[in-house]
Amino acid sequence: MKQFRWYGWGSADRTYSFEERPRAWQFICSALNLNGDEKYPPCDFDHIELCASRVDLKALHALAHTETSKYIRVFHGYGKSYRDLIRLRRGEIFNPPDAVIYPDDEDQVQQIIRYCAANDYALIPFGGGSSVVGGVEPRDRRIVISLDLKRMSRVLEMDALAQVASIEPGIWGPELENYLNARGWTLGHFPQSFEFSTLGGWIATRSAGFASTKYGTIETMTLGLRMATPAGMIETQSAQENSVGPSLLQLLIGSEGALGVITRATMRIRALSKIANYRAMLFGTFADGVAAVRDIVQSDLAPATIQLLDEEDTRCFFAFRKQARGLQGLVETTESRMLSTLGKSIEQGALLILGFEGDAYTVKVTENHVLAICQDHGAFDLGARIAHAWFRDRFESPYLRDALMDHGVMMDTFETATTWGNLELGYQKLTHALSQAAQEVGARILVLTHLSQCRREGATLGVTFLAPITPHQEINHWEHIQRAAIECSIDHGGAIAPHSGVGYEYAFWLQQKLGALGYDTLLSLKKRLDPKNIMNPGKLFLPA
Amino acid sequence: MKQFRWYGWGSADRTYSFEERPRAWQFICSALNLNGDEKYPPCDFDHIELCASRVDLKALHALAHTETSKYIRVFHGYGKSYRDLIRLRRGEIFNPPDAVIYPDDEDQVQQIIRYCAANDYALIPFGGGSSVVGGVEPRDRRIVISLDLKRMSRVLEMDALAQVASIEPGIWGPELENYLNARGWTLGHFPQSFEFSTLGGWIATRSAGFASTKYGTIETMTLGLRMATPAGMIETQSAQENSVGPSLLQLLIGSEGALGVITRATMRIRALSKIANYRAMLFGTFADGVAAVRDIVQSDLAPATIQLLDEEDTRCFFAFRKQARGLQGLVETTESRMLSTLGKSIEQGALLILGFEGDAYTVKVTENHVLAICQDHGAFDLGARIAHAWFRDRFESPYLRDALMDHGVMMDTFETATTWGNLELGYQKLTHALSQAAQEVGARILVLTHLSQCRREGATLGVTFLAPITPHQEINHWEHIQRAAIECSIDHGGAIAPHSGVGYEYAFWLQQKLGALGYDTLLSLKKRLDPKNIMNPGKLFLPA
Repeated sequence: MKQFRWYGWGSADRTYSFEERPRAWQFICSALNLNGDEKYPPCDFDHIELCASRVDLKALHALAHTETSKYIRVFHGYGKSYRDLIRLRRGEIFNPPDAVIYPDDEDQVQQIIRYCAANDYALIPFGGGSSVVGGVEPRDRRIVISLDLKRMSRVLEMDALAQVASIEPGIWGPELENYLNARGWTLGHFPQSFEFSTLGGWIATRSAGFASTKYGTIETMTLGLRMATPAGMIETQSAQENSVGPSLLQLLIGSEGALGVITRATMRIRALSKIANYRAMLFGTFADGVAAVRDIVQSDLAPATIQLLDEEDTRCFFAFRKQARGLQGLVETTESRMLSTLGKSIEQGALLILGFEGDAYTVKVTENHVLAICQDHGAFDLGARIAHAWFRDRFESPYLRDALMDHGVMMDTFETATTWGNLELGYQKLTHALSQAAQEVGARILVLTHLSQCRREGATLGVTFLAPITPHQEINHWEHIQRAAIECSIDHGGAIAPHSGVGYEYAFWLQQKLGALGYDTLLSLKKRLDPKNIMNPGKLFLPA
Repeated sequence: MKQFRWYGWGSADRTYSFEERPRAWQFICSALNLNGDEKYPPCDFDHIELCASRVDLKALHALAHTETSKYIRVFHGYGKSYRDLIRLRRGEIFNPPDAVIYPDDEDQVQQIIRYCAANDYALIPFGGGSSVVGGVEPRDRRIVISLDLKRMSRVLEMDALAQVASIEPGIWGPELENYLNARGWTLGHFPQSFEFSTLGGWIATRSAGFASTKYGTIETMTLGLRMATPAGMIETQSAQENSVGPSLLQLLIGSEGALGVITRATMRIRALSKIANYRAMLFGTFADGVAAVRDIVQSDLAPATIQLLDEEDTRCFFAFRKQARGLQGLVETTESRMLSTLGKSIEQGALLILGFEGDAYTVKVTENHVLAICQDHGAFDLGARIAHAWFRDRFESPYLRDALMDHGVMMDTFETATTWGNLELGYQKLTHALSQAAQEVGARILVLTHLSQCRREGATLGVTFLAPITPHQEINHWEHIQRAAIECSIDHGGAIAPHSGVGYEYAFWLQQKLGALGYDTLLSLKKRLDPKNIMNPGKLFLPA
């Protein structure tokens, strides 16, 4: 376990290197008016004191392997939201789980649930712990057990003809892809958290990945589930069974551990692509790019990956490129000169990353089609190299967040989804709301926006904001900015947190969105399956 | 109203003509060993006696326009299942609705629900009345009101940029398509019942259409719903709002009027296709065709429409072609001769109908790709003409059923969905089970199978069976054959009734499929929204 960074993201031995990107730090300092010598280090782990565990360890051990070490309890005490990382750095872990239990199979999960129900313990399913909405944090005064599913990570069945696999929930992203890739398959699900999140977590939070235009979001990949609940096992039959009646399956997807524990998922898998072509396009403005992306996704030939960066995010992307040396450096210098000869500059305009995946024919015809649409909107084709750099670094940004926090810089991302007609104004208002909120707390702010999860009817605006951390006001300031984003988004008819789940951070907003009766309807289902409210209490639903 | 055939399908002035298809009747007689002079006419409408209506007509009129005429009550008393048509022909309408009410808007719907709840009347939402699973039939001893939504048929909003329209539920298929087509759009939903079914009915029954490979099934087209329930209004917010939490939307889709009345639906619409190319292919065997179709839908370039007929259905298709005269007749004769020179015959092999829709480029590249797959599986390209004949007659088969019943022939279709690996054996077993069941009741049977709703993981087998009607045993015999099909399908891991809903015909099987806890979970949803069980009682859920 100690290979994980207890106060931040991912592997303890992987860090985001500013040394390889000399312009990056300069870009941030200039944007936020920093000296560059600010520091915000984590506290000393050894100085953290946890409240004592209240469990009967022997009784838990009889159910499944259990751990209560400080490191393990800290690691399972929070997710990876900005709020979590601040509290970890400050050593404020006031309500960690009393124990972490690791079931080996569905039977053990059921026994653990029964034990917790009998003793009125709260039980929190834990996959990768990458929640940014407080999804795995104990919020209960009762004894709390964290149920880590990492030992349930087998691929149980594969039906190559139907392209379907039955998989346990605790399998990590790379573990699953490695297993499938070795056999010629892929799930095709690559959320930002991919390297440190699990299949069960993806399903429980209705997750979406980079390549969703081709492979779909997790709820369209999931054909069946088994879930252990306090009321018993539920199984939705797989594949073709979903065509009649209200969808029990779609009730369980997105249930965030608040109804039960996913013990098995039947997933669509796809043939591993023979070709994966990445391509970068430069548009005159973000608005031009948005129009092109809309035309692309509303046609019938769409790429697998579509990420459009606004002008600020584009400037930031190029400032954050790793410094090229030797011949590669010369190529880049030449490239910039040629662009400027053509009246283009990577300092202006909006960058679009396109990823085409499939067999040679499909990729070729799709590429032709999509590039023609881009050209119609005045795009300049930057080719493959820049897109490959994006692809290589696509899972890096959580590491960047840690590195920035080390330097006293807050970084967080807010996501809102809306329809195409609503998007341009929503984008402007959101940028304005964030700037104003930052001003209100006396902070400079850098707002970087990108478009992802593009669908026929609209897309998701991902707004990354950076601001200096003010010690002792870390969370207040962040909350102030975050709240401004949420309120602006709702006022403007956007959907908040579209791909990261609800947790406790957004439970109030979920209630608003569903309306009184809608919320109460879901609550009646919660009460049926979890009458004692032991399953991840205070998440998804408001505290009882 | 009287333009509708009270004892059968669709328009009273449209009939299926055997005169234009001289080989068709001969084909049936030979297969079922009929003399050809059997008759099974409907009873005289004037001789039907209905029980008296028990409502306070004045009170209902105060809520909305209400009718209690015999014709209207008969029309709303049954759907269009074989069981229904037999009972209508025999004049057995023992429990028609006491009244039919026609709300103009959502407010009236809410008032009607309140009135029914206060008086403990059962309320049955009624769209086109095309249910083949008993979805609109009164099954309650209480006073029963049929809520006909035909006056709520407006398109309320259109967002051309997002390609989304907000539509009332009572709009009929052709009415909706005409409205959209005139503005350059289509919904793209063409179920068998298209001409006589409504948007609300499609959503309430999780319907799927011919062109679902391109346009999706109804649950993927529906982005938001408003539903009036006895507990109040529920609204699922549209478009991008469906990415967090359990899906309330997917609980309402497929709820078959048992939770409430759909009063508005937000639907994905699509640009009307510039090109629609239909193409027929002839495979050596059904198994060859199945393999080709699997390869097609598991690739990334699929046609809009895929219908594969087995050998018997192929022979029947050609026997049922309208007789061509003059030059066209000569062309067809020449065509047959040329085929036989090539060692092919339309009397052998399996016919595949493909429909390509979209812009010129997309259609061209998709066609190239799909035809190459067909060729790899040994298909012979029959060109466009035969496919157009299929397309022209695609909504005819319910009329054929009436014409056959006039001649004393039972016709019904059973649908089962399964995975690709399960399909071949399931097909054989199902054909065998139907033949054996027919033998058990002393009847000859003709079993025609086609493949539709092809998905990555599997497809739907549509089994049409024809057998002589034995007077006084009409329903017993049909039930015996139907039950054999259901049991065979379940034993073999198939999903029953995949696109026609549950009604009361399949309520027991839905319970089996969901399992005790799953069923009870949905029942808790029903109890929350409809505590007095006034909404379409006895449908979807078993009688209380």
